[in-house]
Amino acid sequence: MPFWNKELETLPRQKLEKLQFARLKRVLTRVYQKVPHYRKKFQDAGVNPSKLKSLEDIKCFPFTTKEDLFVDYPYGLLTVTPEKVIRLHTSSGTTGKPKAIFFSKKDINNSAELIARCLVMTGATKGDILQNSMTYGLFTGAFVMHYGAEKVGILVIPAGPGNTERQINLMKDFGTTILHITPSYALYVASVLYEKGIDPRKELKLKRAYLGAEPYSEETRKKIENMLGIDIYNCYGLTEMNGPGVGFECPYKEGLHIWEDNFLMEIINPETGAPLPDGEIGELVLTTLNREAMPLIRYRTRDLTRIISEPCKCGRTHRRISRILGRSDDMFIVKGVNIFPQQIEQVLMGIKGVAQNYQIVLESYDEMIVKVEIDRELFDGKIEKLIKLKEEIVEKIRSATMVKPKVELLEPGTLPVSEGKAKRVIDKRTI
Amino acid sequence: MPFWNKELETLPRQKLEKLQFARLKRVLTRVYQKVPHYRKKFQDAGVNPSKLKSLEDIKCFPFTTKEDLFVDYPYGLLTVTPEKVIRLHTSSGTTGKPKAIFFSKKDINNSAELIARCLVMTGATKGDILQNSMTYGLFTGAFVMHYGAEKVGILVIPAGPGNTERQINLMKDFGTTILHITPSYALYVASVLYEKGIDPRKELKLKRAYLGAEPYSEETRKKIENMLGIDIYNCYGLTEMNGPGVGFECPYKEGLHIWEDNFLMEIINPETGAPLPDGEIGELVLTTLNREAMPLIRYRTRDLTRIISEPCKCGRTHRRISRILGRSDDMFIVKGVNIFPQQIEQVLMGIKGVAQNYQIVLESYDEMIVKVEIDRELFDGKIEKLIKLKEEIVEKIRSATMVKPKVELLEPGTLPVSEGKAKRVIDKRTI
Repeated sequence: MPFWNKELETLPRQKLEKLQFARLKRVLTRVYQKVPHYRKKFQDAGVNPSKLKSLEDIKCFPFTTKEDLFVDYPYGLLTVTPEKVIRLHTSSGTTGKPKAIFFSKKDINNSAELIARCLVMTGATKGDILQNSMTYGLFTGAFVMHYGAEKVGILVIPAGPGNTERQINLMKDFGTTILHITPSYALYVASVLYEKGIDPRKELKLKRAYLGAEPYSEETRKKIENMLGIDIYNCYGLTEMNGPGVGFECPYKEGLHIWEDNFLMEIINPETGAPLPDGEIGELVLTTLNREAMPLIRYRTRDLTRIISEPCKCGRTHRRISRILGRSDDMFIVKGVNIFPQQIEQVLMGIKGVAQNYQIVLESYDEMIVKVEIDRELFDGKIEKLIKLKEEIVEKIRSATMVKPKVELLEPGTLPVSEGKAKRVIDKRTI
Repeated sequence: MPFWNKELETLPRQKLEKLQFARLKRVLTRVYQKVPHYRKKFQDAGVNPSKLKSLEDIKCFPFTTKEDLFVDYPYGLLTVTPEKVIRLHTSSGTTGKPKAIFFSKKDINNSAELIARCLVMTGATKGDILQNSMTYGLFTGAFVMHYGAEKVGILVIPAGPGNTERQINLMKDFGTTILHITPSYALYVASVLYEKGIDPRKELKLKRAYLGAEPYSEETRKKIENMLGIDIYNCYGLTEMNGPGVGFECPYKEGLHIWEDNFLMEIINPETGAPLPDGEIGELVLTTLNREAMPLIRYRTRDLTRIISEPCKCGRTHRRISRILGRSDDMFIVKGVNIFPQQIEQVLMGIKGVAQNYQIVLESYDEMIVKVEIDRELFDGKIEKLIKLKEEIVEKIRSATMVKPKVELLEPGTLPVSEGKAKRVIDKRTI
């Protein structure tokens, strides 16, 4: 089992927690001294970093939410002077302004170190060729992977997303071995390869892919793995926490390791904010333990998951989280029932005959329309098969969500194709 | 006068040439030993690196043209094993395949060093905020600037091109001081600022811009400088030679310094290949003196310029080239006359009443149609002014090119807007 930084990745729990505590104390002290907004929040909550006695005490400190990022915007949460930051990344805000996250040189280097751990953990090495089909720009996704791969000595092809013809030519001409791509675009690229009669197993050198930026189901992973003949690893990250590389699967693929020397993780009840024990599903809350320019304390990610605290067979001592089950923001309500898009996806991708693309359309509060592209060969004039397939989809979604959907079967290529983040839910309702 | 690397930038000519010679000998030997295609070319020309006695002797070695880049494609010109390269950049080829240029870690670092020299030379410093509005991806432009700015400690906003509304918000929200942008997009952004009633001098903190990726005239520079109230520096580069940072203006703006410790420059007659003396206009030919992965020997850039060998007031000993006068590829022929698009641009941007956008349309070999957007206030119903303006344009283009054009005046916003490289010449002719 290869490691990028074996010492830190396999640090015994006790030592790891000692390191976490020292770093937590340092970061709390730092923001208390340097960031007026944090000082005020701590004071209002009656807490003081000097009184932190254990990791558990973090629970007394106030949460940071995305709204806090807009206080003293844009430089107000910096613990360094603006001259010390060398990179801005943004994440689309729900309000007009984007969330702005700043990185110092040390932060950029550190985020690359964490990605290097992830890459090496999955078997990537010097000599690999990574085609980075994420968008380079204000979003962090492409850049952080780029810098991490460069650190490992991997050849990076900065392809960016889109232009599928070119993506395929790059894979063929340069012998791409790794893709970094969104799941929806991976599905699309795979389907184009099939349409062109290119057998990825024979004509490409692809070995693995890192999928990110969108939630997706285990069934989607299997589907892409089978279509491309590759090994797919889930990765987790968010702009507020460097972007990708916060959590990553090891070859055992039983959850995503969170680099706990860099991130302190908690799971809370998203409604009440109360801490939940390991194993229970709730909202992931992260504190940066090793960030220089813009540390975030108890940041509410809005992502739902659970902590897996059993030791991992790979030997890494950093605990894992389960695949992200949804964003508390993505959840929608139909007939009074909470539904996550991933529940629908999981059902669809497990049904034979369903193709790559689907869309959930909400026009009223008591109906959910699911548009599903199905394999072209099913449109052969025999209506019985279509009726049966439709019934199967309706029944399986009803059983998974408790809501009976209206299902429309479509020919492949009917729904809009995503070359970046897929928009799976079209909510046309007004309140 | 600030310097990034004062010793190398002001190296006395004699020492600089000694360094060039040592590096030239090294690179010729290296490609001779490691690259079969170069070895064969050298042998066919009857030359051997061991016989190189002076810098002048480079003239005996064969040229490298873009066609050579497709021999043993894509890894055939590497002097290192493919495992040592960490980056691919491509340049749109005229044929189907793109030109592929590979960089080792050392090459990436070195290209950033050269950009750091350029940035500091123009007064940029830690604390500056650079909005990089070039395309990040397979083209080198955005990346090389990005890495160089990061080295200096400048805050980089990786905006990429397009989404003008957002570009303006970024400038306002984050206090952008430097733009890296194409000239055509800079003109467009400036015009949008004016339409919105935003006074860049009062509401933005812009100080300077680096323009590249497209040829443009001195008049266009002045126009953008005036509109934005900033200082504009020309930069020159091409993917085959790292991208930007091969040549850059110093504050005296009397030509672009070529970093001669990294590039050996020659000017040749593009028809015959014969060397031309300093001061004469011809095709720039460059040899990489300090590149590890993929050195290029006597590479024909197709760019037309002349060498300025007089010492520069800035104290740098590296010789300059004049603004690029055109690409031998861009030249088009009408009525048997050789015309460069820049000649037309230079005329147009010097005429009062002409707005930002224009296009040259070629439908036959004996007529050149010039479509020109003009200031909106000129469309006030008084036809006399328009007729006079049109006559002025026709006459000035005729006088500059010897060909009388057909001129069409258009309202602003009529011609397609470029958010990347502007396409100025629409050649509809078939041979």
